[in-house]
Amino acid sequence: MAVGEGALPELYPVPGLRLATVSAGIKKPGRRDVVVMELAAGATCAGVFTRNAFCAAPVTLSRRHLAQTSGAVRYLLTNTGNANAGTGERGMADAQRCCELLGDAAGVPVEAVLPFSTGVIGEPLPVAKIEAVLPTALAELDADGWAAAASGIMTTDTRPKGHSLRFHCEGRDYVVTGIAKGAGMIRPNMATMLGYIATDAAVEREVLQGIISRAAELSFNRITVDGDTSTNDACVLVATGAAGNSPLSDTSSPLFAALAEAVESVCVNLAQGLVRDGEGASKFVTVQVDGGRDEQECLDVAFTIAHSPLVKTALFASDPNWGRLLAAIGRAGLEDLDVNLVGVYLNDVLIAERGCRAASYTEEQGVAAMKPEEIVIRIELARGAASASVWTTDFSYDYVRINAEYRS
Amino acid sequence: MAVGEGALPELYPVPGLRLATVSAGIKKPGRRDVVVMELAAGATCAGVFTRNAFCAAPVTLSRRHLAQTSGAVRYLLTNTGNANAGTGERGMADAQRCCELLGDAAGVPVEAVLPFSTGVIGEPLPVAKIEAVLPTALAELDADGWAAAASGIMTTDTRPKGHSLRFHCEGRDYVVTGIAKGAGMIRPNMATMLGYIATDAAVEREVLQGIISRAAELSFNRITVDGDTSTNDACVLVATGAAGNSPLSDTSSPLFAALAEAVESVCVNLAQGLVRDGEGASKFVTVQVDGGRDEQECLDVAFTIAHSPLVKTALFASDPNWGRLLAAIGRAGLEDLDVNLVGVYLNDVLIAERGCRAASYTEEQGVAAMKPEEIVIRIELARGAASASVWTTDFSYDYVRINAEYRS
Repeated sequence: MAVGEGALPELYPVPGLRLATVSAGIKKPGRRDVVVMELAAGATCAGVFTRNAFCAAPVTLSRRHLAQTSGAVRYLLTNTGNANAGTGERGMADAQRCCELLGDAAGVPVEAVLPFSTGVIGEPLPVAKIEAVLPTALAELDADGWAAAASGIMTTDTRPKGHSLRFHCEGRDYVVTGIAKGAGMIRPNMATMLGYIATDAAVEREVLQGIISRAAELSFNRITVDGDTSTNDACVLVATGAAGNSPLSDTSSPLFAALAEAVESVCVNLAQGLVRDGEGASKFVTVQVDGGRDEQECLDVAFTIAHSPLVKTALFASDPNWGRLLAAIGRAGLEDLDVNLVGVYLNDVLIAERGCRAASYTEEQGVAAMKPEEIVIRIELARGAASASVWTTDFSYDYVRINAEYRS
Repeated sequence: MAVGEGALPELYPVPGLRLATVSAGIKKPGRRDVVVMELAAGATCAGVFTRNAFCAAPVTLSRRHLAQTSGAVRYLLTNTGNANAGTGERGMADAQRCCELLGDAAGVPVEAVLPFSTGVIGEPLPVAKIEAVLPTALAELDADGWAAAASGIMTTDTRPKGHSLRFHCEGRDYVVTGIAKGAGMIRPNMATMLGYIATDAAVEREVLQGIISRAAELSFNRITVDGDTSTNDACVLVATGAAGNSPLSDTSSPLFAALAEAVESVCVNLAQGLVRDGEGASKFVTVQVDGGRDEQECLDVAFTIAHSPLVKTALFASDPNWGRLLAAIGRAGLEDLDVNLVGVYLNDVLIAERGCRAASYTEEQGVAAMKPEEIVIRIELARGAASASVWTTDFSYDYVRINAEYRS
């Protein structure tokens, strides 16, 4: 129940970063469920986190440690099988203890460790099980550990997600590699979207924060399956500095442009991978809105369509239901929307215009356009020059089954 | 697939209003699909209509005629089987023509007729079929026609909805009777929520508008199954004046208070009836939010819960999934929300507090609380004195089936 090709591509090592994936038996015996990432001294880290007021203990602590160290983080500690969410004060103490244990074992301050947890909620984190595997993890750190880590961070994912690319700028080669798990808003029981992206470029902290904030905005914040935002979502960007460039501080430089583009490209690829592996997904749908007055109103229309259960069930049925699309556009809250200017396209087929079915449209065209696994719904608002796209899936029987039966 | 008792109660006649329900064969031969309501001369009418920018032709025309006549409406003409939506300019001409035909036959101006249509979209309205039955309809008008009309306005509803009550005020007896169809936002293909409420009180038009606006706000605008707003939603309130009181103009009078309460009560009953008959519904759920700073933030939390597919699939599974409830509250956008103050109750069982499962809570309590068809989810925000409730249903396999297969 995942859309399209899913083989993990080659993930290039990022000089200055090593990974280990080990088995602590947190939920299932034998499952490799703890991932440790080691950042070279001098690396910089920035991150974006869930905006949910009920955020999990590790999210609170990661935010705090990032601030306390000004991004000079040395270890990222991730466990699956337990989200340490909905765990109150004990959850905070447990997350803190995990950071202390890894910090002590590795000889770095507790603040230099960021914790990440994903899995079932409301259960106490089994700290002792995690403690027991930290020596092994530290002994097995390996720059080639990305693929194992991509699998190690999975929960209900059906396949690992990763993307990697290299670019050349002003006489140097750089790499950006990222992995992600979950499908953020679409996973049951608040299990988590986690993303880890790293580059060997040297980047000043504020610039790094700007790059990951914008890249997340254009990728992870533009996917939705059901509109539910997790309590544990987190995405970090690491700059190890091993490439040897002087730290990037100029946002008008060629390196900034090249790096921002590469990070965005990796994030978009990972985000789309999350949607393709969405619960019960049988379609991968791009909702592209053009001709808006500004980006926000394009996003308002795109998300109203992407969240509409009536649109999503029609997608599941491969039904070119232009009426449901018009209805969703009409309730997106745009001021002074002239419905007579709006055009609706399925792939390249104009299906609706002037508030009704397009004169040129035939049901056969619509049925053909809805058949593929990958569909583009394009809305032309014809009232400005702004555009935005979001990615989503359909609503299927399997979505209901997975979410209704998750705890049984 | 409807929740609870569904027998239509006794619907009291409203002096000054007569109804006829006849068969025009618009979609199915023999189906009684045209309802005509005749208002006595001197009656006043007010209404609320969909906010969807893609509103159907009859909605546009009803709004216009209400304004042109200052509410001095004489006929309400409703057809099912065809929504006259997504029909462009021809749709406007067809709706106009229906009003002309009924106006001519009844001897009133075209503006004194309000048109309402519900059913499939994108198909031209069969005006000739409607024209053919208007003489019969006018001949069969009957003050006791409410129950037949409640069935006549149905589309995919599984049962008619109506409610009626009498009250006494300052020496006079009054009646309020209402019928409704569809389930507004939850019906497929933009089919429609329609509501018709009438009283024999005499009420000035602006006061009448205020009463129906507020009553709709507290009833039809507080139900949701899937968040999709129809293009045809309309609800009208008629005051025939047959009770003989001097026209109500004082909003601080006892009659205003009594009438507003009666209309609200009828609207809430009808609105809940729509939810109970929602597509695939197996639960009737009240989401009550207390302790908010203002009504709006209570509504924000209540609707975030009511729209959450993860909450709704958990309801379908009778799963007391407090984590999904906390996650929904947390993403409702409340400023400075102190999650440690929030309490979550299923019926009378405290299931979560201080950001985690309540110490007193047992899974057995939760399972027992989720078992009934009717459930109250109560959220205590503990930051103010405002409250609000919305009503919704679960998401079931049948919801997907109905909406995925509707056009096949």
